[in-house]
Formats: sequence, structure tokens, C-alpha cells
Amino acid sequence: MSITSAGIVGIIASLIGLGFAWYQRTFVLSQPEGTDEMKHIAKAIQRGAQAFLSREYRAIGIFVAIVTVALLILSQVSSLPWQTALAFLLGALASGLAGYMGMYIAVRANVRTTQAASESLNKGLRVAFSSGTVMGSIVVSLALLGVSVLFIVFTNMLDDPTIVASALAGFGFGGTSIAIFARVGGGIYTKAADVGADLVGKTEVGIPEDDPRNPATIADNVGDNVGDVAGMGSDLFESYASSIIAAISLATFSTLFQAEGTRVAHQVFPILVAAAGIIIGIGASFLVRTEEGANQEQLLGSLRLGVYSASGAVVVAIIGLQIWLGLSSSISIATIAGLIGGVAIGYFTEYFTADTYKPTQQLSASAEGGTGIVIIRGLALGMMSTLAPVIVIVIVTLVAINYAGLYGVAIAAVGMLSTLGITLATDAYGPVADNAGGIAEMAHLPEEVRNRTDALDSLGNTTAATGKGFAIGSAAMTALALMAAFINALNPNVDASEVVVYILDAPLVTGFFIGAMLPYIFSALTMVAVGNAAQEIVEEVRRQFRELGIMEGKGEPDYERCVAISTDSAIREMILPGAIAVAVPVGIALITWLGDGGVVEQYINENTLIGVLIGSLISAFMLAVMMANAGGAWDNAKKYIEAGNYGGKGSEAHTASVVGDTVGDPFKDTSGPSLNILIKLLAIVSLVIAPLLVDVVDIQAIPRDGVAAEVQTIDEPDAEVIVDEATEEAAADDTAETATEDAETDGEGETATEESGG
Amino acid sequence: MSITSAGIVGIIASLIGLGFAWYQRTFVLSQPEGTDEMKHIAKAIQRGAQAFLSREYRAIGIFVAIVTVALLILSQVSSLPWQTALAFLLGALASGLAGYMGMYIAVRANVRTTQAASESLNKGLRVAFSSGTVMGSIVVSLALLGVSVLFIVFTNMLDDPTIVASALAGFGFGGTSIAIFARVGGGIYTKAADVGADLVGKTEVGIPEDDPRNPATIADNVGDNVGDVAGMGSDLFESYASSIIAAISLATFSTLFQAEGTRVAHQVFPILVAAAGIIIGIGASFLVRTEEGANQEQLLGSLRLGVYSASGAVVVAIIGLQIWLGLSSSISIATIAGLIGGVAIGYFTEYFTADTYKPTQQLSASAEGGTGIVIIRGLALGMMSTLAPVIVIVIVTLVAINYAGLYGVAIAAVGMLSTLGITLATDAYGPVADNAGGIAEMAHLPEEVRNRTDALDSLGNTTAATGKGFAIGSAAMTALALMAAFINALNPNVDASEVVVYILDAPLVTGFFIGAMLPYIFSALTMVAVGNAAQEIVEEVRRQFRELGIMEGKGEPDYERCVAISTDSAIREMILPGAIAVAVPVGIALITWLGDGGVVEQYINENTLIGVLIGSLISAFMLAVMMANAGGAWDNAKKYIEAGNYGGKGSEAHTASVVGDTVGDPFKDTSGPSLNILIKLLAIVSLVIAPLLVDVVDIQAIPRDGVAAEVQTIDEPDAEVIVDEATEEAAADDTAETATEDAETDGEGETATEESGG
Repeated sequence: MSITSAGIVGIIASLIGLGFAWYQRTFVLSQPEGTDEMKHIAKAIQRGAQAFLSREYRAIGIFVAIVTVALLILSQVSSLPWQTALAFLLGALASGLAGYMGMYIAVRANVRTTQAASESLNKGLRVAFSSGTVMGSIVVSLALLGVSVLFIVFTNMLDDPTIVASALAGFGFGGTSIAIFARVGGGIYTKAADVGADLVGKTEVGIPEDDPRNPATIADNVGDNVGDVAGMGSDLFESYASSIIAAISLATFSTLFQAEGTRVAHQVFPILVAAAGIIIGIGASFLVRTEEGANQEQLLGSLRLGVYSASGAVVVAIIGLQIWLGLSSSISIATIAGLIGGVAIGYFTEYFTADTYKPTQQLSASAEGGTGIVIIRGLALGMMSTLAPVIVIVIVTLVAINYAGLYGVAIAAVGMLSTLGITLATDAYGPVADNAGGIAEMAHLPEEVRNRTDALDSLGNTTAATGKGFAIGSAAMTALALMAAFINALNPNVDASEVVVYILDAPLVTGFFIGAMLPYIFSALTMVAVGNAAQEIVEEVRRQFRELGIMEGKGEPDYERCVAISTDSAIREMILPGAIAVAVPVGIALITWLGDGGVVEQYINENTLIGVLIGSLISAFMLAVMMANAGGAWDNAKKYIEAGNYGGKGSEAHTASVVGDTVGDPFKDTSGPSLNILIKLLAIVSLVIAPLLVDVVDIQAIPRDGVAAEVQTIDEPDAEVIVDEATEEAAADDTAETATEDAETDGEGETATEESGG
Repeated sequence: MSITSAGIVGIIASLIGLGFAWYQRTFVLSQPEGTDEMKHIAKAIQRGAQAFLSREYRAIGIFVAIVTVALLILSQVSSLPWQTALAFLLGALASGLAGYMGMYIAVRANVRTTQAASESLNKGLRVAFSSGTVMGSIVVSLALLGVSVLFIVFTNMLDDPTIVASALAGFGFGGTSIAIFARVGGGIYTKAADVGADLVGKTEVGIPEDDPRNPATIADNVGDNVGDVAGMGSDLFESYASSIIAAISLATFSTLFQAEGTRVAHQVFPILVAAAGIIIGIGASFLVRTEEGANQEQLLGSLRLGVYSASGAVVVAIIGLQIWLGLSSSISIATIAGLIGGVAIGYFTEYFTADTYKPTQQLSASAEGGTGIVIIRGLALGMMSTLAPVIVIVIVTLVAINYAGLYGVAIAAVGMLSTLGITLATDAYGPVADNAGGIAEMAHLPEEVRNRTDALDSLGNTTAATGKGFAIGSAAMTALALMAAFINALNPNVDASEVVVYILDAPLVTGFFIGAMLPYIFSALTMVAVGNAAQEIVEEVRRQFRELGIMEGKGEPDYERCVAISTDSAIREMILPGAIAVAVPVGIALITWLGDGGVVEQYINENTLIGVLIGSLISAFMLAVMMANAGGAWDNAKKYIEAGNYGGKGSEAHTASVVGDTVGDPFKDTSGPSLNILIKLLAIVSLVIAPLLVDVVDIQAIPRDGVAAEVQTIDEPDAEVIVDEATEEAAADDTAETATEDAETDGEGETATEESGG
């Protein structure tokens, strides 16, 4: 299958996905909105979300404009193609659009879910889940559409593989740029509003969550949408697009595929897998329905039925495509390993954070020992929970590389994300159900309705935790694939697996340290940002309660002001962490480019960047998993106690667990998820600016053939000797086999020991 | 200077150090012990500490015996020398002895410090600091003595550099084995007793700290000694010994030094620097004295005078030795860079944790926002505080490697630790002053005495924080140097800086992940261990208050039981984390050794181990700095509030800050410091078992000459082509210069682009 045909298949699948999204959108919007009061509340949430996104996109727009211009300027003074700038712009637009559309439907589905839930649980689930599928479909369709179109255009326009990789990566870079700000800004907004609403409302005034008298309650509900819907959407948009881009790039670079004549087949494979995934996801989404009076288990079962059926069908599609394209079965093994890995990480995340399992139950029990203990135990739980996802990532990576080389890592990521349409649907469903409950409370609907929305909401919490694990796992695999593509782009004449570095090189080693530090600095900034923003909300809410006489029934709360404050502070606080994430890799790359040949090169060069990528990837992965799982476990430990365990509401254990939840909020909803984007951003920025570096760096390679590496070790520090030896060796025996054996012996250091061993 | 002469200088300096320690010990023991009540209390602490150390050493003894036997068996079936086993045993004995002697004097100096403080502040400082110098001198003297003796013996007995490195590393391994258990066990003991004493005593019963009615108060005072004295002593014993061993090993491996004929001079340099440091430290310790009525600033100034004078004198000694040995001035630059780096890290640690600076003051202020906020801010502070030490380590590493290669990293670590004698004295002084205050309280001494011991104690908190930063920084540099020595040991025929690895190799990349995870798992285990042990103490203390009628004056508290429980649980809980730390590198090495040539090799091999070493080093460094500084800042934020700020004692801010301190306790005194040893242990174990691996691994190298690397890139995946090309190149031009230029062009990928770029 040619590149153009595969691209067209990708485009067709994307259009079908968009058509399905439109169909589901129409279904959702056709549902009744309920009473006037409900409509009134929903309108306020819509206005707030709209206002935030407009402000946020305007701020990001400036950034996007600056970067586009910078990329254009760079394309004039270096070998960076202008197409990168175009792709960047398109990626930013597509990512922004995906986030916007997802939120558009979410803030309209919430009230309709409430209304539907007042009729039946199944109807409620259907409306909420349908709005999730709108989001899921739009994200995967826009991503695949963009990649497919650019893939056809760029491979026809450009021919140097590093240039093609850079241009394609521009699309992913555009997506990540939106994502980093959307995740950080949305994350700050949602947690600041949540903490602000709770701290004054629940703790100081003593009114329940979502009480309409709380001035921050609308902001709180807006927050669910801007953080968990728009932020998560942009995040996974980018993972999805970048995993495909990385796979295409690595297939393009591969000298093995070139030699075999399978390059094009390997290039189109990820596009076709993604296309199949979209179509299968649509089919599987029709399986999600439940019976009236279904319990938590059954509700979860119905969502799982959708996800697992889609996974099963995708496995069949992967194998079919591999056979049809005439590829080795090892390609299927790598792809399926990724798919299974994604499901496994989701499962382990649930194990560590759901109150149906031991870890969270023990955390609840520890709350009886007081606040200090519950914090220590929660942190320990989060740290311990890194074990399972690391093992999964390690196994997937080992299988992927051993079966399909570094291309295997990229297609493992593609495989992991192949069911994203439906996975994201179950994830985006959560905030809608959460909002639906809020609206039911604010509109004083009967308890029966509230119980149904509670059931839907509680389900959303579980899927949100699973979704977070999935987002981190796929981000790690994607970042690893992008990193491989970047390293390969620096020396496009060899296979990525053949690239060697001096492992104790000063810039590399110091790059490891700097990279490992970045997630810590980034998390510190975002955690403090939440605190600062929350503080502003708290003061405003206190002021309103004090001045407006809300509790005495004399005045109405001013929701708009809280929304405006949340918006302002989130936008302000997102700038620094977002800028750092972009500035570090760009800065190192520019220093490398400009410092070539000078004394600076000894201290900072391309190896610094490679070190930063590796260091940040592994450090951020641990921190992100720790934060997400500790946060999720604290949240559920609190709910477990509220459900009547260990003294229930109002007990000392409950007070302790509430503090745990407060600490966990920025962990799991702001800092943790933002780290996913940080690592992808660092890697994709590097890939984008690889053409700048390729002319100034000396990336070395040693061929490796098959399983056992062929060693070409040169033991002497003096160049003269090497040449002499090489000549002697070549003269002594002209066949490659013997030469290789000689080299291997050298590598083991047996021959030379006597020379320098005394 | 010959190896033997330098070794003898090292031995003489060590003996002088030991003589000084004996002199100081005699001085301390000659001081009066005060009243019978004081003697009674001191005896209880002595008995408790003695009991713990006996139990701990018995447990560790079993471990040491097993490892010694295992090393002996390995020496029969592999190329591992039997000398490694001997050195291991000696290292374990020396480290254990250093810890024991430090604690022996500390638990006798405490009561004498109390008595001296009842006379004057200066006398109190002198007694406490003198006991610190006993500890400091013993640690550095025993370490240098062991290394010097083994250096003479092993270099005369053995000649393969890998074998010599392994045998010497055995001494460091013995030291670390004691250290890991002593740090973890002591850390668990001290925090369990502390938390247990505070939680019931202060919070539930409402009696002040160190109240003699609290059954856990003796255990609490014992804990200060077993954790902060014995644990810290064993930790730094090992850093000190290992940095010298790493420097000797890297000098031995260096092909450059061999070619220059400066190998021996480079080998003896670290020994001589250490010897000079010991003598200078002794002299500088006499500068530490203060006037009566000195304030905190002046007390700190007097300690600093000692440390800074020693640093200045060591700089002069380093330059003098370098010139005398005829070495390049770049050797002095690298060594002094390390020395300055150590001071800088100490300063930044103080900046982030002392209440005289903004970060901790802001943390105190945030306590007004409640417990959740103070926890979030403290974690953010800890994360942000990684910035400064990382920058310091990065600069020191860059300078060291660029000036003196990887040998530079090792001598930078030697330089950093050259003033350890006196640095450790200021550090070990802390627990003695803390104990002195406890004894003053328990023995109902007049307020004036208590005020003096408080001043001494408060000073100890500052030096403890600085000491922790120093311990982490020197551990990172030492681990890096050991890692370089290990990698070099795998291919002893090349310079460590010439060793290359496939940067995207599957075992290496997955090793990074596993390595980065280890500190998280390790910290989770140790944090939970503290919780478990504390829980047992809490229950025992509650039982005693309930059953013995202590508060009604009817019965006496049973101190011994609390000591016994702390001991039992600390010993039990230290086993798992300690065993993991040893088992992981040994396991990977054994799999690599046994799996050579099989299918396992594709998944786990020497690159896994290299990945684990790098991943754990950077991950543990961040986590250790974060934990130590967050913990230190919480502690001081609490004290700052207790000093009357933000509402003072009993305010809501105070309650919040107490929770912060509770969380910080295991952070700064158990998990954080244990991570130092984890990274050193992983690296030294690898170096010890390097002889096993050297026969089975293919460690490749590419020569690099001077500043710009000479590139010998082979662009073709097919071995036949390479040999042909090499022959052609060599045939075309026989001079090295032209061949190098050719290779460089290849490396930049210009020539080959057309072949595979389409």
C-alpha cells in the first residue's frame, strides 16, 4: 500500500470518526434540558467554561504566534523546513479545537444527563457516555486527520528523513504546546476552585458540596470541565498524534527496513492501525448500556465491555494488517504488547487507588492514627505504586525493542493508544457525571435523581483514575519513541539502535541530573500555583459570605466574580511552568547550535539534551505515578471513611482523610498529569529542532547485527595505532566473519590486558 | 613517591588521627558527670544505646558472614579475588567500629556536656564538640588506615587493574553494608521513638518533651545517638573510603596516565590529600571555642571558623601536593571544585531549611492556611530546593571531567570529603547537645542550664541540616566516581571516558526505569517501617500511662521496655529495605554472568546494571534532597512558630506545623539519608563483582583525544562493508590525521546521506 493510499485511508477513517462525533453530538443536544432552574445553572457553567477557554486560548494564541514566527525565522537561517512552522500551527489549532469541542459538548451534556437521570439510570449513562464519545472521537479523528494529511504532503515535498521527521513533529509540537498550557492552566483552575469552594463552604460555613449558596460552586463545576475534559483531551491528542509520528519517523530512518524494501509498509502500518482503532471504537461504543438499578459493579462492567471488546477487535485488526502488509509477526507482537501494557497499567492504577482493594482500605485505616500518619502512608502508597507501572513499561519496552527494534517502541505506543477513542470516552464521561450531580444538587432535584447521578459520578472517579494511569503510561512510551526518533534524526544514516554515546560524557551525565530535576521544579511551581490561586478564591468567597448576606438569605452569591478570579489566576500561574518546559530544550539546542566549535561545546552540547530527555523521562514518570496514585488513594480513602468506615463523617479519621485529600488534589489533578506533557514536550521539541543540530553534532554509531552485537572496539587511545591495526586486520584476512571475531576478542579486553594492565 | 611510601604516609596520618581521638576521648571522659540523678539518666541512655547496637551488630553480623562466605565461594568459581572477601570483612569491621566508638563517646559526652553547661556555655560547647571530634577523627582515620594498608598490600599482590579495583572496593562494600543497615535501622529507631514519645506524651497526656514521666523518653534520647551518630558515621565512613578507592581505581585504569608515566602519582594523590585533611582537621578543631553569653550567630561562627579554616588550609595542601607530585594544575582545579561544591551545597541546604531565610519563613506563614497547605508548601519547597544542589553537582562534574577526566570526579569527591574530620565533628556534636538538653530537663536542672543546652541544641539543628546536604552531595559524587570505576573495570584496557554504549539499548533503557524506581520503593518501605515501629511504641506508652499510674505519681515508667520495643522493631523493619539494596545489583550481575550467550542476555545484561546505577543515582539524589530539605524546613517552621510567630504555640498554625514536622521526621531522618547509602551501595557492589562480568561482557569503546572527540563512525549495518572501507581508507592514506578527518565527515552523516536518505 502506498503512502498516499494509506494517508487517504487515515483521512477517511478520521472523517467517519468526525461524522460519528457529529451524530452523537446531535443526539446529546436533542435531549431535554430539564427545568428552568437547571437551564439557568447550566448556562452559568457554560458561560464560565467558555470565558475561561477564550481567555486561555488568547494567552496561548500569543505563545503560538511567537513560536510560529520563531520557527519561520529559523527556517530561513538553518536547515529547518518552513513546513515545520505550518505543521506546528495546524497542530495547535487541531489540539485547541479538540479541547474546545470536547468541552462544548461536556457543558451541554451535564444538564441533559441530570434530566435523563431523573428518568432512568440507563438514560443518564447513555447521555453522559455519548458526550464522552464525542470528545473521544474528535480527539482521535483530528489527530489522525492531521497526521495523515501532513504525511502525504510532506513525504512528497521533502526527502531528507530528518527534515520529514521535523516537519511532522511540528504537528505534535503544536498539539503539546496547547496541551501543556491547557493541562497546567486547567489543572490550576479546577483545583483552585475546588479547594476554594470546599475550604470556605464545607469547612468554615458548613454547607454541603455544590450548595447553590456557595459563590465558588459554579467555578468548581467549570473547573471539572476545563481541567479534566479540555486538558486531558489536548494531552491525549498529542500522545496519539506523536506516537504515530514517532513510528513513521523511525520507520523512515530504519536502514534495515530500507534494505528489506519494507519501509513504506512499516510507515503506513501505524496509520492503518489507528484508522482501524477509530472504526472499532465507534462500533464498541454501542455496547455501552446498562439496566435500570444497576450497581457500581454492573455500571463499570458495561463501560469495560466497551473497552475490552474494542481491545480484542483491535488485536485482530493489528494481526490482519500486519499479515496483509507482509510484515513480520514481530511487528504485531510489539504492537499488541503495548495494547496489553496500557490495559495492565490501567488495572494496577485501579488496584492502588480504588477503595475496593487493600492499599486504599489500609490508607483509610491509617487515618485513625492522625493526619501525619495518613500523609506519610499516602506518600508511601504512591511511591510503592510505581512498582507495577515500571514493571509493565519495562516488559513492554524489552519486548518491543527485542522484537521490532526502536520502531517497536513507537508502535507499542500506537498499540496502547489504538483504543483511545473509547478509553477517552469513558474518561471524559467522568466530569459530565460529576457536573450532572452538581446540577441536581443546586437545582434541588429529588433524592432519587441525586442517587442516580451519584452512582454515575462514583463510576467516573474509577474511570478517571484508570485514565490517569493510561495517560501516564502512554506518555512514557510516546516520549521514549520520540526520543528515539530524535536521536536517530541526529544521524539519519544509521538505525537508532546503532547510535552510541560516551556513557560517562560530562554533558550527558550532567544532562541526566538536570533532566531529573525538571519535573521536581515543574511540580513545585504548579503546586504553589494552585495554592496561590486557591488563596484568592478563598478570600473572595469569604468576602461574599461576609458582605452579601448570602447565608441570611438577603443576597445572591456572585458566581461570575469567582469564575473571573479563577480564570485570571490560572492563566497567570500557568505561564512560568509552561514557559520553562519549552525554554529548556530549545535553550540547550540553541546553545549547541551556536556553541559549535567553541569552548562552550565541552560543557553543553547535544549530549546534554539527550541526557535531559532521559533524565526527565524517568524522573517524571516516577513522580507522576506517585502523585496520581497517592492523590487518587487519598480521595477514595476519604470517600471510604465517609461511607461509614472508621468512624465515618465527622470522626477524627475523617478530618485526617480530608487533609490527605487536600494534599492529593494538586497531586492528582494538576502537577501529576502536567508531567505527562512535560516529558512529551521535551522530546518533541528536540525532534522539531533536530535539523538545526544535525549539521553540528557528531553522533557516532557502531553497527549491530541481529541479536548479538558486532563489536568493533578500538582499544588504543591513539588514532595512529587504530589505523595501523585496521590495516593489519584487513590485510590479514579479507572476510568479514574473521574480522568480526577479532573485534569481539578486542572488545572483551583479552588481547590488550597485558599491554596496560601492570 | 612510591605506592608504599604514600600508603605509609596515609597510615601515619591515620594513627595521628586515632591518637587525637584518644586524647579527646580522655579529655571528655575526664569531665565531671554531675549529680547522681544525671548519672542515673545517662546510664539508662548508655545501656539503651549499647543494647541496640549489640542487637543491630549481631543482625548485621549474620549478613556480613553470609556475604563473606559468598564472596569466598565466588572467588573459587570465578576470577573474583579472595582478597575482596578479606577487604569486605575489614571494611565491615572498621565501619562498625567507627559507629560504635562514635556512639560510645556520644552517650558519655551528653551528661558531661550538661554538667559543663551548668558551669559555662563555652565549657558545654567544648565538651560536646570534643566528643564530635572523637567521632570525626575515628571515622576518617579508620577509613584511611584501611584503604592505605590494603592499597599497599593489594597493589603488590595483584596486578590486573579490575582485580585490584574489586579487592579495594571490597573494603568500601563492607563499610556500606554496615552503613545501610545502621542508617535504616538507626533511622527507624530514632523516629519511631521520637514520634511515639511525642504523640502520646505531648499530644495525648500534655507533658513537655523529655519529661521523665514519659516512658519513651530514654528511647528517644537513645535514638538520637543510634541514628544520627552511628548511622551518619557509617554513612560517611563509606563515602570517604569509597571516594579514595574510586580515585585510585580510575588512576589505575587510565591509559593516559599510563602513557604519561604519572599513574602512580595520580594513585597516591588522593591518599596524600586525605592524610593532609586529617592533620589539618585536627589543627582546625582547636579553633572552635566561644565566649560566655555568645548568641546563636557567634556559636555558629565559631564552628564555621573551624570548618572554613580547615577548607582554606586543605586548598593550600592540595595545590602543594599537586605541584610536589608533578601533576597538572587541572588536578588541583578538579579537587578544589569538589571542596567548594561541598561547602556550597551545605550553604544552600541551610538557606532552604533555616528559619533565618525566606523559604522556611514562608512555610511557617503558610501554616496559617491549615494543615493541607503546609504539607503542600513543604513538599513544593523540598522539590524546589533540588535546584541549587543539582546546579552545584552539575558544575563540579563538568569542571572535574573537563579538567581531569573521570579521575576528576573521584578526586572532586575526595576534595569534598577532605575536611570530613571536622565537618563530621560539627555534625556529631548535634545529638550530644540534644541529649544534654534532655538530661538537663529530666534531671530538673535550673533554667539557666537548660537555656545554655537549648542554645547548643539549636546550633546542632543547623549543623545537622548542613551535614545532611553535605552527606547527600558527597554520596552523589562518590557514587558517580564508583560508577565510572565500575564501567572502566568492565573494559580495563581503555579510559573510562572512551566507553560507549548503545544509548537506546533495551536493557539500558529499562535499567534506567528500574533504577529510578528503586529509591521510591526503598523510601516507601522505610517510611512505612517508621510508622509500624512508632505504632508499637505508641501502644506501649499508652499502656504504661494507663496501667502504671505514672501521672498520678503511683508508679515509675518502664523505660527499658520502650527501648526493647524500639530495638526489636527497628531491627526487624531494616531487613527488607537493606536486603533489596544488596540483592538488586547482585541479582542483575549474577543473571548477566550466568545468562551469557543465552536468550536472557537480550533482556538483562551488563547494560541493565549500568542503567540501574544511573537511574537510581539521579532519582535518589532528587528524592533525598527533596525529603531532607522538606523535613528540615517543616521542623524549623514549627520551631519558628513556637518562637512566637504566626500565633505561637497552641495556635492553629502551630497545630498545622506539628503535622508537617511529623511527616518530615521520617523524610529527613530515615528515608532521605538512607538513599545516600542506597546509591553508593549499588555502585560499590557493582565494582566488587566486576571481575565476574569482565569475561562475559562486550564493553565497547571509541578513542577520544583531547577536547574534540575523534570520531570513528561506521555507517553501514553490514560488517563486510566496514572492513572493506577500513581497508580502503587505510590503503588510501596511512597517516592518522587524514583518517580521522574522514571519519569525522562520516560521523556528521554528510557522505552517506544520499545512500539511505531517500
